[in-house]
Amino acid sequence: MASQFEPRDPDFKARVAQSFAQQSIMQTIGASLLDVIPGQVEIELPFDQRLTQQDGFIHAGVSATIMDSACGYAALSLMPENARVLSIEFKINLLAPAAGDRFVAVGKVIKPGRSVFVAEAQLFASSRDSRKLVATMGATLMAVIADD
Amino acid sequence: MASQFEPRDPDFKARVAQSFAQQSIMQTIGASLLDVIPGQVEIELPFDQRLTQQDGFIHAGVSATIMDSACGYAALSLMPENARVLSIEFKINLLAPAAGDRFVAVGKVIKPGRSVFVAEAQLFASSRDSRKLVATMGATLMAVIADD
Amino acid sequence: MASQFEPRDPDFKARVAQSFAQQSIMQTIGASLLDVIPGQVEIELPFDQRLTQQDGFIHAGVSATIMDSACGYAALSLMPENARVLSIEFKINLLAPAAGDRFVAVGKVIKPGRSVFVAEAQLFASSRDSRKLVATMGATLMAVIADD
Amino acid sequence: MASQFEPRDPDFKARVAQSFAQQSIMQTIGASLLDVIPGQVEIELPFDQRLTQQDGFIHAGVSATIMDSACGYAALSLMPENARVLSIEFKINLLAPAAGDRFVAVGKVIKPGRSVFVAEAQLFASSRDSRKLVATMGATLMAVIADD
Repeated sequence: MASQFEPRDPDFKARVAQSFAQQSIMQTIGASLLDVIPGQVEIELPFDQRLTQQDGFIHAGVSATIMDSACGYAALSLMPENARVLSIEFKINLLAPAAGDRFVAVGKVIKPGRSVFVAEAQLFASSRDSRKLVATMGATLMAVIADD
Repeated sequence: MASQFEPRDPDFKARVAQSFAQQSIMQTIGASLLDVIPGQVEIELPFDQRLTQQDGFIHAGVSATIMDSACGYAALSLMPENARVLSIEFKINLLAPAAGDRFVAVGKVIKPGRSVFVAEAQLFASSRDSRKLVATMGATLMAVIADD
Repeated sequence: MASQFEPRDPDFKARVAQSFAQQSIMQTIGASLLDVIPGQVEIELPFDQRLTQQDGFIHAGVSATIMDSACGYAALSLMPENARVLSIEFKINLLAPAAGDRFVAVGKVIKPGRSVFVAEAQLFASSRDSRKLVATMGATLMAVIADD
Repeated sequence: MASQFEPRDPDFKARVAQSFAQQSIMQTIGASLLDVIPGQVEIELPFDQRLTQQDGFIHAGVSATIMDSACGYAALSLMPENARVLSIEFKINLLAPAAGDRFVAVGKVIKPGRSVFVAEAQLFASSRDSRKLVATMGATLMAVIADD
């Protein structure tokens, strides 16, 4: 994949991967980092019955968890080396039940800024023979600079 | 606590508790149902290092998980016996890091409807000597009637 | 433009145009209907100093006005003949000041439903030699059937 | 009304009033500033047929316009003298048709910050003998410091 963005830190991939590895929740739910390009990050989650709501689908909050991290790391990939990323807010629209064998959250920066970043995520549910958009997110993230 | 709402199903408490018990994710993260009155539900989550993001705070998606369920069950408590509840969308504002020993999500219906319910949730973080509002949510829920 | 959606009412264009003509606010702000295809509607607004906020840009609420109508009519274009459309909620992210000579809101349905529709809108600001994305919206709409 | 906030600029009222007077859109729709206390602002709008959607109610975007300004000025009332306020995002839930003789948007800061403020607004519709909550908003605002 090509990216429209120029990263400010050439080591953005390693920095995102390192931070992702520190998110204990990702191991707890079984999520992994699929792909990182400047301004875009994909996170994968296999179906797990331990993550379900009352009807046996993945809980909307679990969907939000990987979509929020996908947005946050998409933003972090464009930030300078000494920056941390903080979610300010996000909104999720649930389009269909999160049913499937495997889920991929694709987070993309749509507006980078000095301190405020806007990102969007899509959540796709896959099973053997189909791939379906099941949720969308709009998020605002903030760059917190270490020296601040 | 008193409620401004009249439940349509006198067994709303049992119905909410039963559905909550079927949300595997609640056991996975260690959340429990604290209180259910018509149109208002509280869910408690003790701090757990397994649920954290890169800075050691509870991940925003985990906060969203218990706030979404608090909103959903607040709505379900006002629905007729044969209804299921579905989240259509929610938005969360993260006011402060989710740091503390214990978290309580309070979900309240602000507008019940025939099929569409609007609810709000607040997330409080408590430690030995303080209680702090750390996130707010606005959510839209839908009543799905079994016979539909 | 081609559409991925099949309209249920062959007269969807006339129906959208008629409803748009009944929105007095559109005449008050000077907005006009540009284009209607199944599931997608464009609304245009020329810059007008009467619509500005304190810095001379178009007020975010005015941007929201045409984006909300673009989403609503994108949804209405896919509804049956006897349906009315109602906005349940929308969220707008303001990416850049709404500065320019002319603004176009493009609303698209991303998930049609029996009663609930999810749509997104983008707002572009144009001046002589540039076109810029200045805001995005995510919206939930409802079909209200006359016989209900 | 008492406020829980201490303003940083003793002239916050005059500063809010001056900025409000520069929002041409407020005169265009007929809105006026009702009340300003630290962290809370009320804006009033009489019903006007020129502001309606297809069913004769106030258009959701017009509701959003006064709610966004109420949130923005609630935030500005707590900012230092050299700061300007910018809306980053807002979300509105429409609880009931905006029908009535007169509308009041009440905006309140729920979390002030150095640069990011979170605010909420409620919109009440009044007619001779009733007052009804018709919409709620959650908004994120930013302080832009002149010397930046």
